Amino acid sequence: MPINPNAEIEVTAFRWVPEGAQGLVNDLRVRWALEEAGLDYRVRLIGGERPPGYREDQPFDQVPCLRDSSVHIFESGAIVQYIGEKSEALLPRDPQGKYAAIQWTYAAVNSLEPFVQHRVLLDVVWADQDWAEPSKPTADALSSLRLQQLSERLGDKEWLEGGRFTIGDLMMVTVLRLADRGRLLARTPNLSEYVKRAEARPAFRRALEDQLAAFREHEPQGVAA
Amino acid sequence: MPINPNAEIEVTAFRWVPEGAQGLVNDLRVRWALEEAGLDYRVRLIGGERPPGYREDQPFDQVPCLRDSSVHIFESGAIVQYIGEKSEALLPRDPQGKYAAIQWTYAAVNSLEPFVQHRVLLDVVWADQDWAEPSKPTADALSSLRLQQLSERLGDKEWLEGGRFTIGDLMMVTVLRLADRGRLLARTPNLSEYVKRAEARPAFRRALEDQLAAFREHEPQGVAA
Repeated sequence: MPINPNAEIEVTAFRWVPEGAQGLVNDLRVRWALEEAGLDYRVRLIGGERPPGYREDQPFDQVPCLRDSSVHIFESGAIVQYIGEKSEALLPRDPQGKYAAIQWTYAAVNSLEPFVQHRVLLDVVWADQDWAEPSKPTADALSSLRLQQLSERLGDKEWLEGGRFTIGDLMMVTVLRLADRGRLLARTPNLSEYVKRAEARPAFRRALEDQLAAFREHEPQGVAA
Repeated sequence: MPINPNAEIEVTAFRWVPEGAQGLVNDLRVRWALEEAGLDYRVRLIGGERPPGYREDQPFDQVPCLRDSSVHIFESGAIVQYIGEKSEALLPRDPQGKYAAIQWTYAAVNSLEPFVQHRVLLDVVWADQDWAEPSKPTADALSSLRLQQLSERLGDKEWLEGGRFTIGDLMMVTVLRLADRGRLLARTPNLSEYVKRAEARPAFRRALEDQLAAFREHEPQGVAA
């Protein structure tokens, strides 16, 4: 189990989030990458009220950050890439393999996530706003288009670049899990299967379980049924 | 001038786009990076009707792609990083300097751009939708928060990591130029000044001029006043 209180690598995560966000917070990406790479890490849990000076670690008040003896960085995409550079299992070393994997990390957070996230938030966070329902057809069209294009590109391949799982798949799958939570994958069964293949990886299961364990441990009194 | 029809590096760009998008299409990021790095490139212009098989180059039907003797990739963030690896002028070699620059490229396309772009599209593309106006307060709050947080982090520094321009600044400035076009920088004067500093770079000016020159050359008949 890579969680080790004496590990050199420190990752920030939230102590607790509401149930709808559990399993979706982006420290999952970093935990998953570290599990795939077999690298020990310790967790620094932070609360809704951020510790003093946290904006110096993360200017947007988000998680995760990663700190070790070489770097102190934020943005899950950059962190996952940093872990990939330590582990060829996640990031090929030949230029085409490397940059194809990297391109999919950017595609995940820029070509897919904004449209998926916006569509999901219309149902979850903004559901009681009078503009939410009438704006859904446009949001549906945008998210569906990108998911359909991704589905066509994946086809019947196991992973985005063929037979080998990379940081590109890791980042993309976390975005598709949000889409799945919002029931946006009904028309792209190959993307659903792709998510299931990724979720079956032992490294993913450990990472998810460790994120959820912290939430269980720190559940506020009165929240549990 | 790095545009050279015999160059090894090929970049895709649109032949023409409407005036509102001119100077904002993402091949600008790649042209700018290549100019900063002093690398020759040739341009493959594509039209609204994409050439057969273009989805194999770019699954989301966008520009830019980059092709050379080593890689064939898409996503401007990945391409700019690839160019950065060829040129220390854009991407420091020490781990902290390198990953700090990379983290800002992800911050640009994920922590800023989605909120800025959505807010701008409400005025430009969706202005006649009945849900556009009532959704603006929420979109304003989201984009303002992120711009304010970035403004606080930049402070009075010249570039995001201090005295040295990197791919992180290059990507961030292109997002802030969109915010500026949408008049979203009025309350963050240091971000306006940051954009002006970047736009004054000779490499930026050449890149912008070359994108605009293609649009002038291929302006559809009947569009000009």
